[in-house]
Amino acid sequence: MSLPRTNPLLNDRDVDFQLYEVRDATWLCTLPTFAEHSRETFSLLLDSTRRLAREVFYPTYRPMDSEPPVLREGRVHVHPLMRKLYPQMVELGLAAATRPVEVGGQQLPLTVHSVASAYLMAANLSAYAYLGLSLGAAHLLEAFGSPWLRDTFMSRLYSGEWTGTMALTEPQAGSSLADVRTRASPAPDGSWRISGSKIFISGGDQDFTENVVHLTLARPEGAPPGTRGLSLFAVPARRPEGERWVDNDVRVAGLIHKIGWKGIPSLALNYGERGDCHGWLVGEPGRGLTQMFQMMNEARIMVGLNAVATASAAYHEALLYAQERPQGRPASVRDAAQPQCFIIEHPDVRRMLLRQKAIVEGGLGLLVEASWQADVAEHGHSEEQRARARWVLDLLTPVAKTFPAEKGFEANALAVQIHGGYGYSSEYLPEAWLRDQKLNTIHEGTSGIQGLDLLGRKVMAGGGEALKAFAQEVGSTVERARRAGVDPKWCEELGRALGEVVALTGELGAAGATGQVERMLMHSADYLELFSVLAVAWQWLAQAAAASEGLARGGEGRDFYDGKLLAAQYWFHTELPRVGPLVALCRSGEDSYVRMRPEFF
Amino acid sequence: MSLPRTNPLLNDRDVDFQLYEVRDATWLCTLPTFAEHSRETFSLLLDSTRRLAREVFYPTYRPMDSEPPVLREGRVHVHPLMRKLYPQMVELGLAAATRPVEVGGQQLPLTVHSVASAYLMAANLSAYAYLGLSLGAAHLLEAFGSPWLRDTFMSRLYSGEWTGTMALTEPQAGSSLADVRTRASPAPDGSWRISGSKIFISGGDQDFTENVVHLTLARPEGAPPGTRGLSLFAVPARRPEGERWVDNDVRVAGLIHKIGWKGIPSLALNYGERGDCHGWLVGEPGRGLTQMFQMMNEARIMVGLNAVATASAAYHEALLYAQERPQGRPASVRDAAQPQCFIIEHPDVRRMLLRQKAIVEGGLGLLVEASWQADVAEHGHSEEQRARARWVLDLLTPVAKTFPAEKGFEANALAVQIHGGYGYSSEYLPEAWLRDQKLNTIHEGTSGIQGLDLLGRKVMAGGGEALKAFAQEVGSTVERARRAGVDPKWCEELGRALGEVVALTGELGAAGATGQVERMLMHSADYLELFSVLAVAWQWLAQAAAASEGLARGGEGRDFYDGKLLAAQYWFHTELPRVGPLVALCRSGEDSYVRMRPEFF
Repeated sequence: MSLPRTNPLLNDRDVDFQLYEVRDATWLCTLPTFAEHSRETFSLLLDSTRRLAREVFYPTYRPMDSEPPVLREGRVHVHPLMRKLYPQMVELGLAAATRPVEVGGQQLPLTVHSVASAYLMAANLSAYAYLGLSLGAAHLLEAFGSPWLRDTFMSRLYSGEWTGTMALTEPQAGSSLADVRTRASPAPDGSWRISGSKIFISGGDQDFTENVVHLTLARPEGAPPGTRGLSLFAVPARRPEGERWVDNDVRVAGLIHKIGWKGIPSLALNYGERGDCHGWLVGEPGRGLTQMFQMMNEARIMVGLNAVATASAAYHEALLYAQERPQGRPASVRDAAQPQCFIIEHPDVRRMLLRQKAIVEGGLGLLVEASWQADVAEHGHSEEQRARARWVLDLLTPVAKTFPAEKGFEANALAVQIHGGYGYSSEYLPEAWLRDQKLNTIHEGTSGIQGLDLLGRKVMAGGGEALKAFAQEVGSTVERARRAGVDPKWCEELGRALGEVVALTGELGAAGATGQVERMLMHSADYLELFSVLAVAWQWLAQAAAASEGLARGGEGRDFYDGKLLAAQYWFHTELPRVGPLVALCRSGEDSYVRMRPEFF
Repeated sequence: MSLPRTNPLLNDRDVDFQLYEVRDATWLCTLPTFAEHSRETFSLLLDSTRRLAREVFYPTYRPMDSEPPVLREGRVHVHPLMRKLYPQMVELGLAAATRPVEVGGQQLPLTVHSVASAYLMAANLSAYAYLGLSLGAAHLLEAFGSPWLRDTFMSRLYSGEWTGTMALTEPQAGSSLADVRTRASPAPDGSWRISGSKIFISGGDQDFTENVVHLTLARPEGAPPGTRGLSLFAVPARRPEGERWVDNDVRVAGLIHKIGWKGIPSLALNYGERGDCHGWLVGEPGRGLTQMFQMMNEARIMVGLNAVATASAAYHEALLYAQERPQGRPASVRDAAQPQCFIIEHPDVRRMLLRQKAIVEGGLGLLVEASWQADVAEHGHSEEQRARARWVLDLLTPVAKTFPAEKGFEANALAVQIHGGYGYSSEYLPEAWLRDQKLNTIHEGTSGIQGLDLLGRKVMAGGGEALKAFAQEVGSTVERARRAGVDPKWCEELGRALGEVVALTGELGAAGATGQVERMLMHSADYLELFSVLAVAWQWLAQAAAASEGLARGGEGRDFYDGKLLAAQYWFHTELPRVGPLVALCRSGEDSYVRMRPEFF
């Protein structure tokens, strides 16, 4: 048995499996927008991204974690390695990869971009984050910006000349964007003067490009309170003035000492302290939040990917460690004169590894699925196909964001646990990934908000259309699994679980429809947990089907397929049985925390 | 509503409730050894410890977390605050509090000592750890040491003049103590020469007392391999030589950069590099590990307390934050012109708080119960009473160690989550407690080892005696709850759950008895989880009974009792229903990770 000695970050075989066996990513090339692509072009990108991730990015992770950005005389200085890393991502074409050729992109499916990006995230989450944020900002400008904004800002973001941020959060308005106070006043030249404070702005300043463009939510003078009074503005750190670029009065007011993602600063920014902060309206006035939310699926898929990648890096590290660390003996060996075994021989260590595998590869399945649906939703052959994909995508997004973040944190903790006392030290990497992971349950909408989004909006959308489309997807997977000879019990159990969730959703929807909104949403967190168990079981059934088909084809690689079937078994025997109690809980009207008053604690 | 503005660390009202309402701690004073005590003497100690914890220890926590010990020229320099903190704990009499008057103690019940210590742990875990470790070392010397060892070392540990450590772990022998290699050779003067390496020695050096005594596991020359070849030695950093104290050749070989417990160093120690490391045999040769394990219940109870305390501090911090942080509006308020509400008004935030409360106060219940059983096991009126308490204590110990460590970590993560983006920064404290908590699933036996201990040894002990004694305890609580008018369904459900666990245990025991040891232990982790859900439900039923009795008495404090009943409801409706699926899983023979081979991952 020959084992890899360095962390692969993600399992290449699994990525290929998810792209070409669980589903057929080359089908995407039948969509006109992706017609120039093929498995070969996908592989070219994947191979070069993997290489960059493993050879260049991964070795920079610990140094960047150890030496976080500093704020000196009003400017943020990030780790000098970023000067080398950022251009290399841009050079691979990752910034605009999924965008149209007209804006310098490659019209690559998001499905392929997602798995490629996951390698870079696993290698160095913060370094990739600068790119991810810039891409989000550029995409907003592409979708809603005037030609001048696209020329001036978007093109420089896609080309990697500058970076971008999303500036939503304010000290008094974290999850509650209705309370954004940053103001915008019209100026005679058609631009706006911006004033206010933002906080937690990731990448809000850095010293490896000349400029940073902040896509900023602000409230124009006279606009109403609440979210419908918000507009979106492009606010650069340096603005054009004739031939020159001058300081645009965006001041770094403070640097937050984050516990992870230490390679990228999180900042408090003050706009317009001198009254000289210029912003340019992006899209329509009063549509700021709506526009932002049109990008929200992609942003949340990216967080889900961050989470899968972070859990994956730790899982592979734990796997390597367990194969190399001698400790103790199998239960059947009582003779201490015998040599110690590797800890992977202990069933409980294998349990912890298999649980991590089930979370990581089940989570990756969810993210590939969501990316696939995003591709079809935007570029599908027919409006019917696109509409259906949009329903499924909308529904899956809160699950694909939250499951990897919440269970990924558990997986990351298991990687620490497998390393024992060493795992508790910063001489080893798992503790760093554990710190990184915790942010994913908080940013881009907390897990609590995802639960409300799923139950309050997504599963109820279109009078049940979304849930119906999702159920059809699950149904086809069950059919495929039956044909492939997967254990019929798993097929039945998934079908039954789906039926229970659909019935429960109907009941909760009926409660909501009769005005009992609080009753409907009472167990939104449990409902999200429930839906995640179900959705991941669906992904594991799809993987089990593909693995069974692979085994039936015979030939090489039986070990990989056997591992897939055992991980699926783990999920079906250990996690899927939680559906019953969770459905009962959501249905029960259990009201302890609703009745709990502040003075009772 | 007037709210406390500073973190109370533990809820005093709850501590009194657990001591005097859930059970009657004054009953312990009927045991001859505790006869000099009374509720008044208990309160004296509790009050002064609370004050010390809140006023002196808590303000030192962040400074000590931020400036961990450093290794300079072979000596460890800890935070200078320790020079003040250590003597204050000693002055309160906490070092020898539970020990007999003959050795300078106060013969205080462990039950009271445990809750008092929990305040100091919650205030500054590391600062307390020096004391806890010294107490363990001194207790070993008291139990097994010669009069000379007791005079020379034990008395100085109890008096606070020196500190002590437990030196078991070696680089190649973490969980596998059978593989300890540190050697001992007899010297003509009756002492021994020690040579070898230890790792992860907490408090293995410091600069606030003159000496450190390492209670060290080593293998005498010619002793057999495995654990029965191990003896226990007292090995001081400085040893007596005539009138002088000289360096004893214990060198600090390295300092591990832990991610938490930063106030106390974790060290690699080399013994006898110059061949001049003297040790003194403690107790009988070949009984080193057995002797250590006689202290194991107390050591593991201490870890459980560390975990409860760490989760408690974070819970109270989150509670304060949720009462002070405005964000968003109740679901029923759509008007953004209305002021924001405090986040405790959001049901999902209350859910997270109530879950923390259920874990923290349920966990504290377990630890008070275990401490109580330890008191009775040692000092009970009759051998029968003592024996019965020993069974219950042995059985509870792995649960009382692991539940607060594992679920406490989840509770700590919820405290971070409630703080949102701020929780992810080191400007706020929850992240520090989250880091601290992770060690508790690793040290003093990992969670995996606790599961094997519970299922492989404890529930099977005495041919079922231990489980029978435990079941009787649960039975009396159910009776009390019925009398107190607690929801009869809870009583039934707990009874049924207990019955299922007892039946399952019988089946697994039968498998073990017929040689299917692997089959018996296959789900030891799930079994521990299952047993924890049950044991904590037992504690919540006891608390519900006491709360109902309190409400029936009328008068002040209804809010407190209402909160207790709602937390009990939460546990019975949300957690206890997990018993069914967990029993099914343990019974199922689900074998995914047993069949999973290294090359399948």
